[in-house]
Amino acid sequence: MQDFFKVMDIDAVLALRSGFSTVGSEQINLSEALGRVLALDFKAPADIPGFDRATMDGYAVAAASTFGASEANPAYLTIVGAVGMGQEPDHEVGPGLASRIEKGGMLPPGADSVVMVEHAGQLDARTIEVYRSVAPGQHVVAKDEDATHGQTLLPAGIRLRPQEMGLLAACGASLVQVFKRPRVGIISSGDEVVPVETEPAPGQVRDVNAHTLAALLQQVGGQPFLYGIVKDRFEELLAACNRALTETDMVLVSGGSSVGTRDLTVEVLSSLPQSQILVHGVSISPGKPTILAQCGAKPFWGLPGHVTSAMVVFMVLVRPFLAHIAGWQYDRPVWVSARLSRNLASAQGRVDFVRVRLTERNGQTWAEPVLGASGLIRTMVEADGMIAIAKNSEGVEQGAEVEVWLF
Amino acid sequence: MQDFFKVMDIDAVLALRSGFSTVGSEQINLSEALGRVLALDFKAPADIPGFDRATMDGYAVAAASTFGASEANPAYLTIVGAVGMGQEPDHEVGPGLASRIEKGGMLPPGADSVVMVEHAGQLDARTIEVYRSVAPGQHVVAKDEDATHGQTLLPAGIRLRPQEMGLLAACGASLVQVFKRPRVGIISSGDEVVPVETEPAPGQVRDVNAHTLAALLQQVGGQPFLYGIVKDRFEELLAACNRALTETDMVLVSGGSSVGTRDLTVEVLSSLPQSQILVHGVSISPGKPTILAQCGAKPFWGLPGHVTSAMVVFMVLVRPFLAHIAGWQYDRPVWVSARLSRNLASAQGRVDFVRVRLTERNGQTWAEPVLGASGLIRTMVEADGMIAIAKNSEGVEQGAEVEVWLF
Repeated sequence: MQDFFKVMDIDAVLALRSGFSTVGSEQINLSEALGRVLALDFKAPADIPGFDRATMDGYAVAAASTFGASEANPAYLTIVGAVGMGQEPDHEVGPGLASRIEKGGMLPPGADSVVMVEHAGQLDARTIEVYRSVAPGQHVVAKDEDATHGQTLLPAGIRLRPQEMGLLAACGASLVQVFKRPRVGIISSGDEVVPVETEPAPGQVRDVNAHTLAALLQQVGGQPFLYGIVKDRFEELLAACNRALTETDMVLVSGGSSVGTRDLTVEVLSSLPQSQILVHGVSISPGKPTILAQCGAKPFWGLPGHVTSAMVVFMVLVRPFLAHIAGWQYDRPVWVSARLSRNLASAQGRVDFVRVRLTERNGQTWAEPVLGASGLIRTMVEADGMIAIAKNSEGVEQGAEVEVWLF
Repeated sequence: MQDFFKVMDIDAVLALRSGFSTVGSEQINLSEALGRVLALDFKAPADIPGFDRATMDGYAVAAASTFGASEANPAYLTIVGAVGMGQEPDHEVGPGLASRIEKGGMLPPGADSVVMVEHAGQLDARTIEVYRSVAPGQHVVAKDEDATHGQTLLPAGIRLRPQEMGLLAACGASLVQVFKRPRVGIISSGDEVVPVETEPAPGQVRDVNAHTLAALLQQVGGQPFLYGIVKDRFEELLAACNRALTETDMVLVSGGSSVGTRDLTVEVLSSLPQSQILVHGVSISPGKPTILAQCGAKPFWGLPGHVTSAMVVFMVLVRPFLAHIAGWQYDRPVWVSARLSRNLASAQGRVDFVRVRLTERNGQTWAEPVLGASGLIRTMVEADGMIAIAKNSEGVEQGAEVEVWLF
């Protein structure tokens, strides 16, 4: 089987995303929409805030009534009313007039600006003097300044943050149309793998990958479905894969670290209905023995058995595919700049991902490689992120600036 | 009231955290623990992986059997068995002997290293020749390399990431002791504020803050409890505050932007049982009119009415308090370096927080200030983060390096 495939570059694998379609959408309550992906462009249903609004406590005026005003030569204005919070004013403010207003209040007709209370003095119950001129629009949010009726405020494909939740609330969007959360099946395989609740016999290990992958999926909006641990037997793995494929939008097989498990995964993937193996080996380290098949319309991954390798492959490859089928168009990992604390050698012909810990020294952020075999989950726990060493690089020197992809 | 208080610096406000205690802890299933805060130091219940484990496919040997081996002068070893995945080997590997092993397999007694399959040739069913020597421990993860029995693996106070979930799984921790999620009451106040489902009359605005704050709380592990919108009337606000205080661990009052709402909040906070106003004004912009009271053992916040101000105050002040009562000791905002795209003036005597959008130009990350009144939620939506201009700075020049705190 291996002979038919050559190791592919990251970009070539990522280009395969376009062959898979996006999950459908659903309407949900705004209060449940944090972190969900918007399925339709969101347009302003009205002007927001919808009325000219004071941004300071003071007096609503026509700006022209204050032109030329100064401490030496104040403008004298007559108070004709006060604006109640949340009320439509019942009076107009013509030239030479003013209306008391609070921050957030609606400007009366005729007023186009607000004199701050600090810049005016009250002479008697009906008269103020103004010591500074204001410009039209000053200390006012215009009726359509937050949004104009019909304007596209949020594009489809963004993941909703708190401020987008606020904008939707401001627009009265108590229901929002979002993409469904992709259902992702996780199958653990390997004769040596036992459930977390089990005390491993000598030679056995607990199922670390299923829990790590489920958590990684949750972080980016996937819904993990655990299909348990399957022994390295063709029929058993095939049955689990078929079931997961029917019930979910994407499947990850992971767990066993032996070459036997890997070969078996390829064999099973080839036997699934309408299946085509697209990738068998990627030019990255760790994570080279990654498999990607298309089964019908669904992506099916065979991940490396070592948990740190599986995690790197998840972040570099699986996550962009998940974002694609989740309709999430703006996934952008967070990179932080740092200096490398020691020389790092790297093999040419593959992208090396190296786990690093961030430390502060002399006002500078340093990236310290966390060393250790890729089977050691501890190395991921000690790391804050990872750096990529380019395919054609022989390594990176101590002190070089590197970009750290935060976990 | 105002006269008794002077505006406080950020650090002085944050120092008040120590006066509040942490919520209690609870035991939950590992599968629900992502993002939760560990309540107890987690110690390894056993050595992990618990046995010497091959990291390559090949032959388990005593390293000494290969010393001096080369292509020209191979070492000849006799195969005495094969290690089954997940099995305890039933044979020993003495000098001159070898055992077939797969990646992840358990080393037999007598073996201390693995010869990679690529570095050996099979001569007959029972004999291999080895072309390279291996060192003791080579291609092996030692039985306690991921964790030593009794070692503290995770300190109390960390928030669990996917890799911590993996480590807990590896240790068989199917139940974990975590801090409870703090319950946080949100009260919206202001005569001009109406529910999201309501079509606002002229002068009214929808309740943006409650939704934005609830989402911000969820992001950092708080459980929001919405107490609805309260008119600017003493008895009504007092009743809502009393109820929220009884039912939650921390309360936020927010919503109205008028000075009336603010004064009322101070009055109500002063009237709550066992209440003491600790902060009345903070030297930041936006966000100066922030109020913090201690009511019994609970923090009670009066937040500015403008949503962008409330969001800045949440990130700079409320979030660290929430982290404190949630037992989360390692909250660390993510800062990204960028160059400022234009000059920014700043008033001395306060820390200015300026919303910025990140753009890439000429291989450099630029922070572009997003301008607009602090009542405009749009300015938060357009921003990727914010920068802080120090209290004693008069501004930052175009091209200067700034640290952007990502939203």
